[in-house]
Amino acid sequence: MISIPFPFGLARVFAVCILFALGASAHAQTDPLPSWKDGPAKQAIVEFVQATTTQGNPNFVPPAERIATFDQDGTLWVSHPMYTQVMYCLERVPAVVKAKPELKNVEPFKTVLPGNREAMAKLSMKDLEKILAATLTGMSVETFNAEVRKWLETAKDPRWKRPYTELTYLPMQEVLKYLRANGYKTYIVTGGGQDFVRVYSEQTYGIPPEQVVGTAGGTKYGYGKDGKPFLTKEPRMLLNDDSAGKPEGIHLMIGRRPYAAFGNSTGDRQMLEYTKAGDGARLAMLVLHDDGKREYAYGPAQGLPDTKVGTYPQALYDQAKKQGWTVISMKNDWKRIFAFEQ
Amino acid sequence: MISIPFPFGLARVFAVCILFALGASAHAQTDPLPSWKDGPAKQAIVEFVQATTTQGNPNFVPPAERIATFDQDGTLWVSHPMYTQVMYCLERVPAVVKAKPELKNVEPFKTVLPGNREAMAKLSMKDLEKILAATLTGMSVETFNAEVRKWLETAKDPRWKRPYTELTYLPMQEVLKYLRANGYKTYIVTGGGQDFVRVYSEQTYGIPPEQVVGTAGGTKYGYGKDGKPFLTKEPRMLLNDDSAGKPEGIHLMIGRRPYAAFGNSTGDRQMLEYTKAGDGARLAMLVLHDDGKREYAYGPAQGLPDTKVGTYPQALYDQAKKQGWTVISMKNDWKRIFAFEQ
Repeated sequence: MISIPFPFGLARVFAVCILFALGASAHAQTDPLPSWKDGPAKQAIVEFVQATTTQGNPNFVPPAERIATFDQDGTLWVSHPMYTQVMYCLERVPAVVKAKPELKNVEPFKTVLPGNREAMAKLSMKDLEKILAATLTGMSVETFNAEVRKWLETAKDPRWKRPYTELTYLPMQEVLKYLRANGYKTYIVTGGGQDFVRVYSEQTYGIPPEQVVGTAGGTKYGYGKDGKPFLTKEPRMLLNDDSAGKPEGIHLMIGRRPYAAFGNSTGDRQMLEYTKAGDGARLAMLVLHDDGKREYAYGPAQGLPDTKVGTYPQALYDQAKKQGWTVISMKNDWKRIFAFEQ
Repeated sequence: MISIPFPFGLARVFAVCILFALGASAHAQTDPLPSWKDGPAKQAIVEFVQATTTQGNPNFVPPAERIATFDQDGTLWVSHPMYTQVMYCLERVPAVVKAKPELKNVEPFKTVLPGNREAMAKLSMKDLEKILAATLTGMSVETFNAEVRKWLETAKDPRWKRPYTELTYLPMQEVLKYLRANGYKTYIVTGGGQDFVRVYSEQTYGIPPEQVVGTAGGTKYGYGKDGKPFLTKEPRMLLNDDSAGKPEGIHLMIGRRPYAAFGNSTGDRQMLEYTKAGDGARLAMLVLHDDGKREYAYGPAQGLPDTKVGTYPQALYDQAKKQGWTVISMKNDWKRIFAFEQ
C-alpha cells in the first residue's frame, strides 16, 4: 500500500466532498415540479422559493420563519361532490346505531341507515350536525383514531374506486416536498376536523399531526375504571377553522404569519389575504377546479357559485387577480392530477 | 502529483468518514448533563433516552413520536415570588394609563401606578384580571409582541438584577438540548400566556413559537385603515392551559401523548399523569424547590402548601412517589442552577 501524507489524503477527502456537493446541487436543479406544465403558476412557485431561500436576496427568509399553509379539501385532494370526512360520518352511522339501537327509528339516522346516497345528499345542515356529533364525539381520542384508521383502510371513492388517501393531487404533493426540501415547515390548515385529518396526514402528505390545524372540538380529561387518565372528545367547538377562523387558527396553533398559502375556496380567502399582506415575498395560490374531464369543473370555471362543495364564486377569482394571488388552473397547469395516472 | 486509482481514494474517503463517525460517537458519550450530580434523577433521564432511542430496545420510540413537554414557571425558570408575566403586566400599567389617562384614578390601576410592590402583592384575583386584560388584550398581535420584546430588553429580576431570560435553570437547558440531540421535539406547556412565552422561547430555550402551548385567548380578524388585515388580541379565553387543561391543550396543539413531561406544581399533575399512563417507557419528572440558598425553598420542602407561587402540596409529592414520577431536588441533584454562576 502506498503511504500518503495525511494532508494530501485530507485534501482528497475535501475534493470528493466538493464533488458530492456539486452532484447534490446538480440534482437539486432537476425539475422539482415534474407534474406541472411550464407557465405562470409553476413559475410563481419556483421564483418564490428561490427568492426566499437564497442568501443575500432582499426577500431571504431565515429557515425558522419558513411556514407554508395548505387548505386540504379541494386544494390537496378531491372534495367533490362530498367532503371525505362527511362520507366517513355517514358510513359510521350503522356502527353508531348498532351500539345504540334506540336510534334506529330516529331521524336523521333512519334516513342514512340504508346507505342511500341520494337521500344523504338532501340532509339539512341541522341533520348533518346531529350525525357529525354522533360520529365524531363521545369517545376517547384513541377510539376515534382507531375507527378512522380502520375506515380509511377499506373505504373507496365511488368514482375512482380507490382509497380516499390516493386521491391527493400529485402536483400539490410535489409542492409540499419542494417546499420542505427548501426548509419550509408545511402545515395543513383545514376547515375539516383536526383530529380526523391528523390520523392520515403523516402517511398521506408527510405532515405530522402537530402540523395539522383544523376545526377542533374540546376534549375532557377523566379517568377510566382502571384509574388511567384519558381524553373524551366533546361536542363543544374550540376553533371553527374556516374563513376568518383560518388566520385566527394559524395564530393560535403556529404563532407566525405564513410566507406561502394555498387554498381553493371562499373559506380560504382570509388565510390568503393574511399571508399576502406580510412583508417581503409572499405566495398566495388559489386552485381553480376547471378540469371536468380529469377531475371536476365547478365554481368560476362554470360561472357558477357553488359554496356547498367548498369552491369559490367569481368574486374570489376577481380578488385573486387584483391582489396578486396566483390562480392554479388544474386543466392548464397540471400535466398529471393523480399519482396513479400514467 | 501521484495519481491514485479512484477506488483507492474512495476507500480512503470511507475510512475517514468512519473515523469522523467514531469521533462523533465518542463525542456523544461525553456527559450530556454536566450540571447534574450523579443520582436517581440524572439516571432516570439518561436511561429513558437510551431506552427510547436505541434500535431494538423494547421501548424504542420512532423519531416522529418523540415528544417531550415542559412546564415553564418553576420548571424551566424562576417563578418565585411572582410570575414573570405578572411582573410584565404590572410594569406595563404606566404605559396603559398614559394611553388612557381616564384610568389614572380608577382601581386597580391607581394602586399599581406608583410601582409599590407590596401593594401589588396584595391585589385580589379580580383586580389582577383587570390588569391582565388591559395589558394583554386589545392590541394587534404585532404590537403585543413588540411591547413584550422591548420590556424583556430592560426589565430585571429584583433579586439577581439580571434579565428574566437569564434566570432559566441550566440543568433543564441541558435536558432540552439532550432530548433534542436524541430526536425529541421539545414543547413548552405553560399555564402562562402562550403569546407572551412565544416572544422569547426560541432565543431563550431553542423552542420555536409553534412549540409553545399556553393559556390562549382568542383573536379577531379585521382590516386596518390601509385595508390590510390584522389580528387583534381579545379578552376571550380559548384554552386555560393549567391542570386538566394541560393534557387537553396537548391534544389540541400537538395531538400526541408525550413520552416525557416535566413540571413542578399542582397545575402539572394531569400532564404528568397523562404522560406516565402511556405505553412503554415514559418519563414524568417533578422539580422540587428545596434550595432556599441558591434559589427558593417552598412547598413540601417546607412542609407547606403554597399554591400561589405555582408549587405543590405534600399530596403531589406523595403521588409522584407512588406513581413512579421522579422528583428532582434542586438542592441535591443540581451542581449549578444558573448559567451565570461559576
